[in-house]
Amino acid sequence: MQVAIVLYPGFTSLDVIGPYEVWGRLPDTEVVFVAERPGLVVNDLRSLSVNVVAGFGDVPNPDVVLIGGGPGQTEQMSDGNLHEWLRRVDGASAWTTSVCTGSLILAAAGVLTGRRATSHWAALEHLAEFGVTPSKERVVIDGHYATAAGVSAGIDMALTLAGLLVGDDVAQTVQLIIEYAPEPPYHAGALESAPARVVESAMEKLSTRFPSR
Amino acid sequence: MQVAIVLYPGFTSLDVIGPYEVWGRLPDTEVVFVAERPGLVVNDLRSLSVNVVAGFGDVPNPDVVLIGGGPGQTEQMSDGNLHEWLRRVDGASAWTTSVCTGSLILAAAGVLTGRRATSHWAALEHLAEFGVTPSKERVVIDGHYATAAGVSAGIDMALTLAGLLVGDDVAQTVQLIIEYAPEPPYHAGALESAPARVVESAMEKLSTRFPSR
Repeated sequence: MQVAIVLYPGFTSLDVIGPYEVWGRLPDTEVVFVAERPGLVVNDLRSLSVNVVAGFGDVPNPDVVLIGGGPGQTEQMSDGNLHEWLRRVDGASAWTTSVCTGSLILAAAGVLTGRRATSHWAALEHLAEFGVTPSKERVVIDGHYATAAGVSAGIDMALTLAGLLVGDDVAQTVQLIIEYAPEPPYHAGALESAPARVVESAMEKLSTRFPSR
Repeated sequence: MQVAIVLYPGFTSLDVIGPYEVWGRLPDTEVVFVAERPGLVVNDLRSLSVNVVAGFGDVPNPDVVLIGGGPGQTEQMSDGNLHEWLRRVDGASAWTTSVCTGSLILAAAGVLTGRRATSHWAALEHLAEFGVTPSKERVVIDGHYATAAGVSAGIDMALTLAGLLVGDDVAQTVQLIIEYAPEPPYHAGALESAPARVVESAMEKLSTRFPSR
């Protein structure tokens, strides 16, 4: 099985590394990072630089494709090489997947039309602009599409998909190996549970990226 | 505030990217990846290559230092440049931290002697060989040391430390921005909750790395 993870400038690292850590541990699985242009790809925080060796032409037929989100997503919304590649590989993939605002890129490329999908809570409503039904669930499976909510939700999506791909026992073994028994010190990870002042502060920080309509 | 994250060949990516995603979002905080030799550092799965620009000499005085784990940890247990740097920066750091088997490296460098610490469940007992008291907690704070259990536990440690560094409100805002409201599809992330056959399978996979004594 080949898994392709797309990187672009301004990606959020945990979006992609969460699923990578899960899927990279599945038996007989190759994970390849892919970018429009091979070379160093720098993340949103500008302090992580990943050397990507594969371009789109090098990965014509992945079984699973993943695109994450991040501030750089806004630069990936116009049709071009990425969208063309996404449409082409989606035609043959077993699963096409996203984390966070990666689903907006899939939606803009046209592959999610008519589907239910999720995204980062601050971006969720924008899916509707592309004919996609926004869902507040943390992980949404619709057809051969698996989308995750913001950033850390990719771990939950990846384990869910691992179960579907290789069975519950193997998925659980990976969960134990990465010791994924979360104990967040606060309950502020979702809009519904975060204190009002925390929601306000997070919205303010994200407001330049997702102006309210 | 400067946070230094150590990379070495064979590191496990989520160990370091979890805390990076949290701390990189704190106000007035610079995160720098550092390695013995600047250049490309390849992870345990051999498919992620990070371009590290800082060597130990470039980061003489970080406020927070983090070392993660991974199969490459076993090559970092002998005294040398890394251990010397760890001892030096630990002398002035506000916090010295680890994820997974990174605590074994801190222990081998001598900075955890007499402390309580945690590590990956499969490696935990080995801390005692270095005069460190193993703890099964997911996050252990002892003095200015914060250690996390395996791989994904770094996210919980990083949020805990963020609260101590900059206050609960800011830490919670970061938690909401990375939408960390985990919903693992299974309850197999800890020895205590995983099915027996899953524990057996995970132990078998890790047995070459951590031979039982």
